[in-house]
Amino acid sequence: MTETLGEFGRIRRYFAPLAGPGGLGLKDDAALIDCASGRSLVVTVDAMVEGVHYLPEDPPELVAKKLLRVNLSDLAAKGARPLHYLLTTALPKAFGDDWVARFAAGLAEDQRLFDVDLLGGDSVSTSGPAVLSLTALGEVVAGSEIRRSGAREGDRVWVSGTIGDATLGLKVLRGAYSQLDPADRSLLVAHFQLPEPRTGLGPRLVGVAHAMCDVSDGLIADLGHICEASGVAAAVELASLPLSGPASRLAEQEPDLPARLVTAGDDYELLFTAPPAATPAIERLAAELTLPITPIGIVEPGSGVRLLAPDGQPVPIAAPGYRHF
Amino acid sequence: MTETLGEFGRIRRYFAPLAGPGGLGLKDDAALIDCASGRSLVVTVDAMVEGVHYLPEDPPELVAKKLLRVNLSDLAAKGARPLHYLLTTALPKAFGDDWVARFAAGLAEDQRLFDVDLLGGDSVSTSGPAVLSLTALGEVVAGSEIRRSGAREGDRVWVSGTIGDATLGLKVLRGAYSQLDPADRSLLVAHFQLPEPRTGLGPRLVGVAHAMCDVSDGLIADLGHICEASGVAAAVELASLPLSGPASRLAEQEPDLPARLVTAGDDYELLFTAPPAATPAIERLAAELTLPITPIGIVEPGSGVRLLAPDGQPVPIAAPGYRHF
Repeated sequence: MTETLGEFGRIRRYFAPLAGPGGLGLKDDAALIDCASGRSLVVTVDAMVEGVHYLPEDPPELVAKKLLRVNLSDLAAKGARPLHYLLTTALPKAFGDDWVARFAAGLAEDQRLFDVDLLGGDSVSTSGPAVLSLTALGEVVAGSEIRRSGAREGDRVWVSGTIGDATLGLKVLRGAYSQLDPADRSLLVAHFQLPEPRTGLGPRLVGVAHAMCDVSDGLIADLGHICEASGVAAAVELASLPLSGPASRLAEQEPDLPARLVTAGDDYELLFTAPPAATPAIERLAAELTLPITPIGIVEPGSGVRLLAPDGQPVPIAAPGYRHF
Repeated sequence: MTETLGEFGRIRRYFAPLAGPGGLGLKDDAALIDCASGRSLVVTVDAMVEGVHYLPEDPPELVAKKLLRVNLSDLAAKGARPLHYLLTTALPKAFGDDWVARFAAGLAEDQRLFDVDLLGGDSVSTSGPAVLSLTALGEVVAGSEIRRSGAREGDRVWVSGTIGDATLGLKVLRGAYSQLDPADRSLLVAHFQLPEPRTGLGPRLVGVAHAMCDVSDGLIADLGHICEASGVAAAVELASLPLSGPASRLAEQEPDLPARLVTAGDDYELLFTAPPAATPAIERLAAELTLPITPIGIVEPGSGVRLLAPDGQPVPIAAPGYRHF
């Protein structure tokens, strides 16, 4: 067994420095959040399992950042400003203090970047792979949150950034795409290991977007969630799908790649619908944030999501996004 | 692989019925909590691992209830009224829908009992033992929370209920204490499998207790946390330790049992300090709630916790509570 500071020693040394004032120095049973009147708190939780959501050899700093960022992405998808988080780690006893130290260092960096602090947590041991769970809290002006259920017929469907890079990055880590040059491979891997939650964009879409979610299960699956919650259908034009440079180069060699990338998960881009009149505001936001925001389809009556080829013919959709069971 | 409804099917079937209005039907990325002005939210998270915190053969209903209750206990320890919770389950793929159905049924029963609702969660799979993590939210009048750090020299130390039954119940489940009659054995097992969070008592101690926590790591360890946070010491009289009937009967056969029970965890009783003038109010509360609340020691200057025999001599303290690492 690796030498270790022990459960409380680790909390004191590595996690207490991350605690905000409401975290009471991580010395209490619970943490405090002041309620500002006229605000709603937005809360979300996401878990990651070693070997499922990240690779055992991934640097602990990046694992920590990804865990935080996937949750910040959920807050951004509601238009919320992130505030705090709580953390549960179930770690194999063989994980030494060094892993924990590096994990906490990753959190520390991202806390500064995203202006959030740690409120509390729990550390337990498991005989299986590491299981990490993070609860994130943010705030919106009361009533202004952007739900999945607000999409309306005639809305345009938009997505930020590029789609499919994370899943391609995972394939690179597993040895694929050696024909790409190193810079391309690195970019794809970075998308997988270190998503960029759109915390700058999300709150700016309050009053602009009718419905929003982030792309975590896959573009088609997540748009399906919006459609189901809103009681509408959507059509996506495959040719509109925003691809990165490396993904475009791979698509030249594999013409069916884009149709597979629409079901790939882990992009953590914002997917939203907005009325046509909002187009100039969205284009201004894209310019201001130097972030591509691409119209990829429309909301229509009915149910389900159709994927359309340039000739208007339906493209079969393979797997409906990643499922854990 | 067991037949299953799938990740989203399980959420829809078993968990969506548990969602409160803020949970948005579990159809969104995040949940909403309205902030009442003049209130603070209190938030806590606790995890349980199969084979560590509960036994693989424990009924899923009881596992669910224990997971919720250990968190409600943390809220009670701050004087907070429980409101909502979020849930992460990392389950082996071999767990069928039946396990999930029974787990959700346990949550449903306890939701009604404790008047809380589900806000959201995440379901993932693991190749190791099940890891369950629950974040609970409650509220207090702003500024009235009872922290660990408020203990003062001269305070009395009090504890609710009885101490040590959960650890004895675990031993019963492992085959020990066959000399006890079945009713005694059942009572001990129930303490281990289904703790009673003191949600009725906790909020009533606002304005009465100076410092409070729940007994989860062990009485001495948890009192040590209060002392450390408050910058004081405490002395506990071993003879004052409140024992249940079965524990008392075992202590007659094993005279050193009480000194071991003070380091046993999982009791989920409230441990608090209060000035001597609060004694009549505490006694009235105990009578009203028909719950024993026992004075077991005093707060004194210095640091650390001393355990005293009836003759005033120090009793050696064995292991300082359970550690995960």
